[in-house]
Amino acid sequence: MTFVEACRAYKETHGSLPCEVTILFEGEEESGSPSLKPFLEANAAELKADYALVCDTGMWDRETPAISAGLRGLVGEEIVVTAADRDLHSGMFGGAAANPIHSLSAILAGLHDAEGRVTLDGFYDGVEETPSQIKAQWETLGQTAEKFLGEVGLSVPSGEKGRSVLELIWARPTAEVNGIWGGYTGEGFKTVIAAQASAKVSFRLVGKQDPAKVRVAFRTYVKSKIPSDCSVEFHAHGGSPAIQLPYDSALLNTAKMALSDEWPKPAVVIGMGGSIPIVGDFQKMLGMESLLVGFALSDDRIHSPNEKYDLQSFHKGIRSWIRILDALAA
Amino acid sequence: MTFVEACRAYKETHGSLPCEVTILFEGEEESGSPSLKPFLEANAAELKADYALVCDTGMWDRETPAISAGLRGLVGEEIVVTAADRDLHSGMFGGAAANPIHSLSAILAGLHDAEGRVTLDGFYDGVEETPSQIKAQWETLGQTAEKFLGEVGLSVPSGEKGRSVLELIWARPTAEVNGIWGGYTGEGFKTVIAAQASAKVSFRLVGKQDPAKVRVAFRTYVKSKIPSDCSVEFHAHGGSPAIQLPYDSALLNTAKMALSDEWPKPAVVIGMGGSIPIVGDFQKMLGMESLLVGFALSDDRIHSPNEKYDLQSFHKGIRSWIRILDALAA
Repeated sequence: MTFVEACRAYKETHGSLPCEVTILFEGEEESGSPSLKPFLEANAAELKADYALVCDTGMWDRETPAISAGLRGLVGEEIVVTAADRDLHSGMFGGAAANPIHSLSAILAGLHDAEGRVTLDGFYDGVEETPSQIKAQWETLGQTAEKFLGEVGLSVPSGEKGRSVLELIWARPTAEVNGIWGGYTGEGFKTVIAAQASAKVSFRLVGKQDPAKVRVAFRTYVKSKIPSDCSVEFHAHGGSPAIQLPYDSALLNTAKMALSDEWPKPAVVIGMGGSIPIVGDFQKMLGMESLLVGFALSDDRIHSPNEKYDLQSFHKGIRSWIRILDALAA
Repeated sequence: MTFVEACRAYKETHGSLPCEVTILFEGEEESGSPSLKPFLEANAAELKADYALVCDTGMWDRETPAISAGLRGLVGEEIVVTAADRDLHSGMFGGAAANPIHSLSAILAGLHDAEGRVTLDGFYDGVEETPSQIKAQWETLGQTAEKFLGEVGLSVPSGEKGRSVLELIWARPTAEVNGIWGGYTGEGFKTVIAAQASAKVSFRLVGKQDPAKVRVAFRTYVKSKIPSDCSVEFHAHGGSPAIQLPYDSALLNTAKMALSDEWPKPAVVIGMGGSIPIVGDFQKMLGMESLLVGFALSDDRIHSPNEKYDLQSFHKGIRSWIRILDALAA
């Protein structure tokens, strides 16, 4: 909306925009954008432009605008470990029959080493170190593990040791178990040895990590940990590579200056722990570099009851886009 | 029923029983016998006898009667690991916030060492080696891991290495995870980092293992593996010690001879992987030694649809009890 209002205001004031603009609305992002990629394919010629301006991101804080340069990719896998051909009584079979929850626990526990690094073969291939001047800039933001984790009742960063919390969530890959289930999970107790146990596991990717290779490495690892008389099934749930935009490009520096003129504090270049897969498609299918600028605030309660969009974000957001449009057209 | 019919037949033939008999029916065994212990307490004087004859056990095979000498005990624990104070988005927090499924997996994976032994401190205190002549007798039964596990689609014994499958299920203690759950477990995928993850864990006990000490050792172990900013809750689900009757007593030898007279093959002394806690109460509260003899067969489908009781078990079971009664009275 801020961008549309910016275009309207620009036209009202100057009679026309300083450059040609195509506005693309996406209404299916929360359900995986099933129509967007086919639409890009069908309309590639018309949609192709110098840059894609993407506004689905946020500010660093109320005074500091931000440009996102990295978006983590994602690989999702569901695994089902099967042992016996039926649930067993642990009195009759306990201590002799394979328990698939034991295998699954060992598999999941073995995904990280003592340093918090993911153990899959070749997992860090394509992971690039964040340039030291960018890390230095992130350090000036004053974020700490205590502050960041304190908001959700935690205090100790998990994951890779020796990395700042911003680096961990913006620029490092992860393995997270998102769900696990097996055996008796109701009230009370049943001394059952389950026939099956399942888990959903996802990997956040950075840099040039290859989702297909990570999936293969995961499956190879899991198979190596399954007892010979048990079996495992895999179900793939999406895979998209990370997107790393240059930390230092003409586009980014132009936008940085334009934003810094509008807000009390200069713009910062940050990362994003989540994914916006369409940015990768803009790059691959239309050859377009993206600029990720948005004005959401951390207290906007995105996807939650009482979601809001700040009036200051709205007004200064409009003014920000006008400055960026002007600067890019110049 | 076989025992009641035996008493009726004896009385019809001889006019009276060869000794005084009290018959105790238990109708709540499958729901944990809530009334039986108070009933024993209230009627201890009247119930006290030389021996308790318990018939809730089985034959070794169709031709070989069996006397059970060992019953494993049980400790049940439910644990709930809590990390953040709400479910988190793995894009925003992944790689920095503690994931309780990771902690839980590590806890459960660490319950066994590479030799299949339970790692809890002092877990094997009170575990006694089965006498070698009993182990030799078990070996003559011709049971193999392939046969026993093959019936449920498995082939490789899990649990302690270097033990026969009969020793594993009759005479060795275990740790089994009976249920696990946490995070998103529905259709599709959610990249959530759960606030909580839970498991139900049980231990089968043998010999003189102390259920209370095993519970404490488990809780101490779990607490030692929980990150400092996470917490864990424990819920106790029952605890009863193992029961080990003498492998070689006048009672057992008398019954063995009586049974061997009735069946094609001599009686064998076996173990039971499950528990009959009341046998321990007979011992403690009434000072009575128990004799565990029953005529169930492995294809009886206990607790399942089409459960049956073999006519041969019924008829020869009645004759077996008559022989035992006669021998004990003599």
